[in-house]
Amino acid sequence: MKAIQFIAPGQPPELREVDKPTPGPGQVLLKITAAGACHSDDFVLNAPAGAFDYPLPMTLGHEGVGVIAEVGSGVRTVSEGTAVAVYGPWGCGTCYRCAEGQENYCLNAAELSITPPGLGTDGAMAEYLLVDDPRHLVPLGDLDPVGSVALTDAGLTPYHAIKASLPKLVGGTTAVVIGAGGLGHVGIQLLRHLTASRIIAVDVSEDKLAFAKEVGAHEAVLSNEDTVAEVRKFTGKQGATAVFDFVGYQPTIDMAMAMVGVLGDVTIVGIGDGVAAAKVGFFAQPYEVSVRAPYWGSRSELIEVLDLARDGVVRVETERFGLDDGLEAYRRLAAGTLRGRAVVVPD
Amino acid sequence: MKAIQFIAPGQPPELREVDKPTPGPGQVLLKITAAGACHSDDFVLNAPAGAFDYPLPMTLGHEGVGVIAEVGSGVRTVSEGTAVAVYGPWGCGTCYRCAEGQENYCLNAAELSITPPGLGTDGAMAEYLLVDDPRHLVPLGDLDPVGSVALTDAGLTPYHAIKASLPKLVGGTTAVVIGAGGLGHVGIQLLRHLTASRIIAVDVSEDKLAFAKEVGAHEAVLSNEDTVAEVRKFTGKQGATAVFDFVGYQPTIDMAMAMVGVLGDVTIVGIGDGVAAAKVGFFAQPYEVSVRAPYWGSRSELIEVLDLARDGVVRVETERFGLDDGLEAYRRLAAGTLRGRAVVVPD
Amino acid sequence: MKAIQFIAPGQPPELREVDKPTPGPGQVLLKITAAGACHSDDFVLNAPAGAFDYPLPMTLGHEGVGVIAEVGSGVRTVSEGTAVAVYGPWGCGTCYRCAEGQENYCLNAAELSITPPGLGTDGAMAEYLLVDDPRHLVPLGDLDPVGSVALTDAGLTPYHAIKASLPKLVGGTTAVVIGAGGLGHVGIQLLRHLTASRIIAVDVSEDKLAFAKEVGAHEAVLSNEDTVAEVRKFTGKQGATAVFDFVGYQPTIDMAMAMVGVLGDVTIVGIGDGVAAAKVGFFAQPYEVSVRAPYWGSRSELIEVLDLARDGVVRVETERFGLDDGLEAYRRLAAGTLRGRAVVVPD
Amino acid sequence: MKAIQFIAPGQPPELREVDKPTPGPGQVLLKITAAGACHSDDFVLNAPAGAFDYPLPMTLGHEGVGVIAEVGSGVRTVSEGTAVAVYGPWGCGTCYRCAEGQENYCLNAAELSITPPGLGTDGAMAEYLLVDDPRHLVPLGDLDPVGSVALTDAGLTPYHAIKASLPKLVGGTTAVVIGAGGLGHVGIQLLRHLTASRIIAVDVSEDKLAFAKEVGAHEAVLSNEDTVAEVRKFTGKQGATAVFDFVGYQPTIDMAMAMVGVLGDVTIVGIGDGVAAAKVGFFAQPYEVSVRAPYWGSRSELIEVLDLARDGVVRVETERFGLDDGLEAYRRLAAGTLRGRAVVVPD
Repeated sequence: MKAIQFIAPGQPPELREVDKPTPGPGQVLLKITAAGACHSDDFVLNAPAGAFDYPLPMTLGHEGVGVIAEVGSGVRTVSEGTAVAVYGPWGCGTCYRCAEGQENYCLNAAELSITPPGLGTDGAMAEYLLVDDPRHLVPLGDLDPVGSVALTDAGLTPYHAIKASLPKLVGGTTAVVIGAGGLGHVGIQLLRHLTASRIIAVDVSEDKLAFAKEVGAHEAVLSNEDTVAEVRKFTGKQGATAVFDFVGYQPTIDMAMAMVGVLGDVTIVGIGDGVAAAKVGFFAQPYEVSVRAPYWGSRSELIEVLDLARDGVVRVETERFGLDDGLEAYRRLAAGTLRGRAVVVPD
Repeated sequence: MKAIQFIAPGQPPELREVDKPTPGPGQVLLKITAAGACHSDDFVLNAPAGAFDYPLPMTLGHEGVGVIAEVGSGVRTVSEGTAVAVYGPWGCGTCYRCAEGQENYCLNAAELSITPPGLGTDGAMAEYLLVDDPRHLVPLGDLDPVGSVALTDAGLTPYHAIKASLPKLVGGTTAVVIGAGGLGHVGIQLLRHLTASRIIAVDVSEDKLAFAKEVGAHEAVLSNEDTVAEVRKFTGKQGATAVFDFVGYQPTIDMAMAMVGVLGDVTIVGIGDGVAAAKVGFFAQPYEVSVRAPYWGSRSELIEVLDLARDGVVRVETERFGLDDGLEAYRRLAAGTLRGRAVVVPD
Repeated sequence: MKAIQFIAPGQPPELREVDKPTPGPGQVLLKITAAGACHSDDFVLNAPAGAFDYPLPMTLGHEGVGVIAEVGSGVRTVSEGTAVAVYGPWGCGTCYRCAEGQENYCLNAAELSITPPGLGTDGAMAEYLLVDDPRHLVPLGDLDPVGSVALTDAGLTPYHAIKASLPKLVGGTTAVVIGAGGLGHVGIQLLRHLTASRIIAVDVSEDKLAFAKEVGAHEAVLSNEDTVAEVRKFTGKQGATAVFDFVGYQPTIDMAMAMVGVLGDVTIVGIGDGVAAAKVGFFAQPYEVSVRAPYWGSRSELIEVLDLARDGVVRVETERFGLDDGLEAYRRLAAGTLRGRAVVVPD
Repeated sequence: MKAIQFIAPGQPPELREVDKPTPGPGQVLLKITAAGACHSDDFVLNAPAGAFDYPLPMTLGHEGVGVIAEVGSGVRTVSEGTAVAVYGPWGCGTCYRCAEGQENYCLNAAELSITPPGLGTDGAMAEYLLVDDPRHLVPLGDLDPVGSVALTDAGLTPYHAIKASLPKLVGGTTAVVIGAGGLGHVGIQLLRHLTASRIIAVDVSEDKLAFAKEVGAHEAVLSNEDTVAEVRKFTGKQGATAVFDFVGYQPTIDMAMAMVGVLGDVTIVGIGDGVAAAKVGFFAQPYEVSVRAPYWGSRSELIEVLDLARDGVVRVETERFGLDDGLEAYRRLAAGTLRGRAVVVPD
């Protein structure tokens, strides 16, 4: 079968012919109906040799949906023909965090060399994907594969980030979304439907700001030296109650910390350059601001996100590519010329 | 000044001339701009003698907004001319519950004979209202008095009831509102804007159901012997995640218990006949359903409700009466011929 | 191998020779080191024919610990020789509740005929137990099998019930435990170590009350017509903040509802006669009391309970029986002459 | 009357004769029975001119307990002769945060120049203290004034910090307290009684570590270059679930960030040099660690702390001084030669 593979650090991915996998006991084989390309793929492809210890070549794609093509022996709770989405951050299934459904924070994954598909294990950018356990599959129902595949990361990641702040986002509060791109535009929709907060989008691009307002932002503010003052005009002395930084470079993190109010949340979702950081001290920011950087989301949250999509609450802007054009999708991703997420569909 | 007063149990209220009050130290005098009539007034007026130990005659009105006309000595944090709403469930201000802002559950109120205005103390159905402490006043800002006065009870009560269930009302869940009247139609709006749940309204009246859909219900189901089955068609095996009974008679409570699913909430908000009750036992309802009957809401929640109104999230349907026509408002309330809440406005 | 089996409704269990099971793909075979007998076994054995639709004969025992004897093909995350406890309320592993780790509330279990070992599927009262999936196993570490087996139900069930009330059990509050038996004496220990509440035990037996004080109750009150007044002497006007009824008959439920204060919790844990119920209405109990009846607990909670046992926070009083004497254990259980839980140990 | 006053930045305090205040409308006069000296007094006394804009001279003392000596007109909910503790972080009483009881985060305090007694307003280091509103008084009951006065800050501050982490401190987790001094030794007691976590104390002093174990720490680790490795030996791969830094200098904050595990909390309570800060970025610390720096606590939390003291859960180590020796208390505080908190008692 065809697969888009990561060959070596610093090199562009390649479309290669590989063996179709066979499900062993307890495993499930998916026929992929859509796979998503993500900024973190780009981050990983261009990281220095040794930064990520992946067995190469490795099929890319940590966002995938498909139809169950074959189940290994002992699989009893799912069956052939069912459309499913893949929960990506696989864990051991038995540790405390996995027992809570937070496999993204599995305590044994490193030790047992368990990695997400596309990020250490062969991923979804291929005709078939081998899934290690049926619990990593969530029923897709009648959701469109192309429209929903990005929800498994670009939907789940902002949802998890935002869900932790929901109890604070009562009437009269303000939520700020920095970066109205692939994750940010989903974040805006989620905030609009799950809270009564006033939502302010911040971006460097006027186009992205216009898009932010289309998908639900009440206000859109250009990112420059006046941004904090502009946002504070809307929030008054209370400051922003939650700031979600989907960019993660030093200037955006600094901006987030300068906007947030007492008891607020600053959540760093974007990887940025991987080294930017917020400073949290006794007098450095308003009292009792919580600052954190979460990773992906939980299994039950993925189910919630797909339910939200089913009810029309959230949709992801996508561009569609065939598997043969998949390398072009990665080029466009690297060049920053995509509108929304790139989705690859095997024929 | 003129005041609508409760004279004796079982008698209709009367419009009477009474002395304008003078604020003592720490007190505040409001010039009333709007006062709301409520079903609980009717319940109290018609309760048997002795059921409520109020000093009569007593001015009615536990929903009030006004403008600060005069402040007593020692009042430093509010000043004349400010438009405010009255937080009704007054407490002592110093006990544990009051310290938490939950004066509706004050531990000392009974012992100290502290009662809400209009429910034991002279209320807002008059030209002026004496407020015992500035902390019971919430800034109204530019909210319209007539449109917002009912938020102090008909807004706050459903808000408090619903807020406790918000963490459960994730994507894919269903919330049911039984009774689409004065409180219920506010509850529907709140659920629609604060959650992504599917909202089902249940009522005996086709008109009320049409109104429920106007204000945001996704589905409207007539209340009869098929209601539970109808609702279960929408909820599937999961059942309803939250049921809010704004009626509170035995048939509606039974209906609520029959619709709710495992881990769900049943919240009894309507007083009904005052004796109806749900049965909660090991096998009587789905596992870990929480059943409760709350009372009014907290001070900070009233601030949140007014903020929601300011952002256009919630509006109360009202009919306006002058103070001289206030008795007619109470007659229409008793007869059940009002569309929305009756609001009385002194000239 | 030998197994204690449920043969027919209304009959005592029998010790029989059955085939030793073989683990299929994805399954795990445990050599049992201890199995617990529980009041719910007795409830089930004596229920009228048809009440529980179990395939008979069925090996009893929903509390089990053992050592992994053999793993089926495809099992990668556990291995032979590891001591483990069995999480009993098995679910499908893939639905929303299972994704959250709340398999006790699995949405598909009924449809897929998934039942707990000992309650529909062959259980732990035998030399070996077949476990359907490694996720149902929690590492036991160096915990003593006999001392810890009852934690899987008699520990997990009160822990789950109590955990929901912890945020309310702040300084100055009172928690009441009705029934100081198998589950109740664990509940007392948990409350003592996890909260700073004053703990009151209520029981009909002076012996049990003395035992309750030994394991941590601050006060012990005999169950009779004065109990509520006695408890209210300690709680004052605040009432009890949480009441856990480990008995579940009408008089104990009524007692619980009469002791609880505003905003308190009443949790019905004991099955009693299976029909007793609390009444919850607008004026029936203090405002905003939550009443619920949970079932067992979650997987991550079982891990927490075993951690608590490891730290010496909780221990279960037990009487030990060999497998050959297991029928005697059930007779003593039925007769109510056990001190603590009956634990059966194959040689 | 005599009062210990802050005269000018950089100067030691002075014992001076000042007028006894008279309560105006709504105010309360306390006869002080004990006042506490705190490190933050020292911080303020030695801050550069202009750092704190206090009207000088100002009576020190933000920890105070006393007996109500006189109430101003309009005060109805407290009366002469009652022993009370003073809630220190005064707010306006009417804003959103005050309505929630979080006056420590009052939105109007700055604008209205409302400051705590002893930190901008005349404080408790005198024979009498004027309290602006009865809601700032919490009944002391039969608690000993000298033993309990420090609970109003040295008790409330760690309690507030710890309470936010309680839901994470389940069985099997570890809580680390850095700094076993005035606040830290209270924090250890609170953690020991309110959680089942393993508690590790870290300090530079062997004496303080011995004291830490006396008051409840399970482990005591000297603060040096091996501390993180030592702590990680106890926590294993899970890391610490909550780290409370009661010191707040850069080395302790760095240590906290290096010990904490995925989903953990780092809470900076100590002011340190006022500029030290933690760095929070995508790869800078384990995923989803929350870092925050709270300030003091809420009114209802002070009530909870006093209840805990009443139940013997927490006690503060103190040294007692007369008002005439109060300056010596401040000298010993500055020199770091106190064992526990310095408490000043007017004769």
